[in-house]
Amino acid sequence: MGLGLIGGSLALSLKSAEYKVIGITRNKETIDSALKTNAIDKGFTELSSEALLDVDVLFIATPLSQIISDIKKIGSFVNKEIIVSDVGSTKSDICIFAKKNLPQNVIFIGGHPMAGTEKSGFTFSTQNLFKDHAWVLTPLDESTKNRNAVALLKKIIISAGAIPVISSYERHDQAVALISHLPLLVSLGLCQMARKRDQNEIANLTAILASSGFRDMTRIGGGNPQLNFDLISSNISQLSLILPKFCNEVENILKLVKENPETLKKAFNEISKWQNDLYDKNGKNTLLNI
Amino acid sequence: MGLGLIGGSLALSLKSAEYKVIGITRNKETIDSALKTNAIDKGFTELSSEALLDVDVLFIATPLSQIISDIKKIGSFVNKEIIVSDVGSTKSDICIFAKKNLPQNVIFIGGHPMAGTEKSGFTFSTQNLFKDHAWVLTPLDESTKNRNAVALLKKIIISAGAIPVISSYERHDQAVALISHLPLLVSLGLCQMARKRDQNEIANLTAILASSGFRDMTRIGGGNPQLNFDLISSNISQLSLILPKFCNEVENILKLVKENPETLKKAFNEISKWQNDLYDKNGKNTLLNI
Repeated sequence: MGLGLIGGSLALSLKSAEYKVIGITRNKETIDSALKTNAIDKGFTELSSEALLDVDVLFIATPLSQIISDIKKIGSFVNKEIIVSDVGSTKSDICIFAKKNLPQNVIFIGGHPMAGTEKSGFTFSTQNLFKDHAWVLTPLDESTKNRNAVALLKKIIISAGAIPVISSYERHDQAVALISHLPLLVSLGLCQMARKRDQNEIANLTAILASSGFRDMTRIGGGNPQLNFDLISSNISQLSLILPKFCNEVENILKLVKENPETLKKAFNEISKWQNDLYDKNGKNTLLNI
Repeated sequence: MGLGLIGGSLALSLKSAEYKVIGITRNKETIDSALKTNAIDKGFTELSSEALLDVDVLFIATPLSQIISDIKKIGSFVNKEIIVSDVGSTKSDICIFAKKNLPQNVIFIGGHPMAGTEKSGFTFSTQNLFKDHAWVLTPLDESTKNRNAVALLKKIIISAGAIPVISSYERHDQAVALISHLPLLVSLGLCQMARKRDQNEIANLTAILASSGFRDMTRIGGGNPQLNFDLISSNISQLSLILPKFCNEVENILKLVKENPETLKKAFNEISKWQNDLYDKNGKNTLLNI
């Protein structure tokens, strides 16, 4: 459900792994393209009992802000047992809503593929989007039904080239706050600071001097504005918790420059080692190979 | 003076522009390599009246933490008029020290080439290091002597492939605080946050999920620890001024998510446009071509 970059790429990779794929998206032209490029076997322009008739596993790959309302609809269209997962980049709100609102016959397991590009839409879909990327699954509890569903989802995700990682939705949201949403927030903040000064007392000097370091630190802030808004707002409670800690952390660095430079140098050494160990020379996360 | 990455690359590029280049560095082996690769015409292992005899323009390309003590020595070795510049990445402390301590016959113009790599040392020197990069010059005042010296330095810098940018030292330090030192501080802070959580309650989940966005945001923090310490500590007063403003800026983004999402979406649009306009598709600063 949803044939954008994520949904389209998932369809392409599952088709090539010989799964039968049904695509559901409002846009008729997207369905035609998807049929033409052999990304799907069959397409529907809306969610219906007919569309879900032969579906064992349904992935919701619509925009983050739309996932909850899509989950709401699903219950009314299925009578048989079905596994439903999603690809939203925060999991708590979605999982808690699914837990409360879906009927017994729908087994919901939250999901988050850690893949994507600045591009969006089916046109940019690629069979290799998930290759060697983590795909988090957040089961609602430890029931046998959920465990079986996770096993099946793992199999499908591995077929798509991804590396499954199992987590609770709370832990997932804490982790992505640190490695995805806080960095985005900070990137947006750096843009604001330079942009505002740029407009006044130090004229264009900031902008002229901005080179590759600044470019890399502001790349994610300069991404799709709607997506940036959805990401920040989806994890607002975790962000509100960790932002003061982050500000303390950086203030502490400045304090140590004068008060205890040796401790700070030691910390910078550890940071450097940690960051360099985390990525191999091709920029790939080294822990994902374990 | 100093034949590391910056000094060595400057020597190489000036030699190829047919300047006569004298290299001064403690390490005899570096002088031998520099002579062998035709980076210098002549080399000295220490600063002396003899070494400076034929020198019209002296660039101090020693580590940031050493520049002030090198400026101190220069005065005692020169009797004739000489232009002295440096390549330190913050300018206020250096320029104020030079103004107070150098004799009349030394014309000091602070400098900062906005170029470099993670690598250091003469071995990594390259003739093209400065090509199309900004090189800031910070004259001490508007005197004719300084204006002539700036004109000559501009000519030399252009020969090395760089684009000269003239600024006061105060403005330079305000600008680099925003586009270089604040981003570095923030990058170090992001590493600390993820690294600390990594060690406790969310186990390795943060580290496993860290992909290209996090990698880019922590790349500069993971750089050379001693250089990172020198950069942060060299511009501590500007950083102390702007850090609270930065923390307010990011707190304000979180506040607007709930209170005024439309204003925030508009700001994210403007940020995205600003950031994308600042760099061309090859990642080059577009303002530098003007």
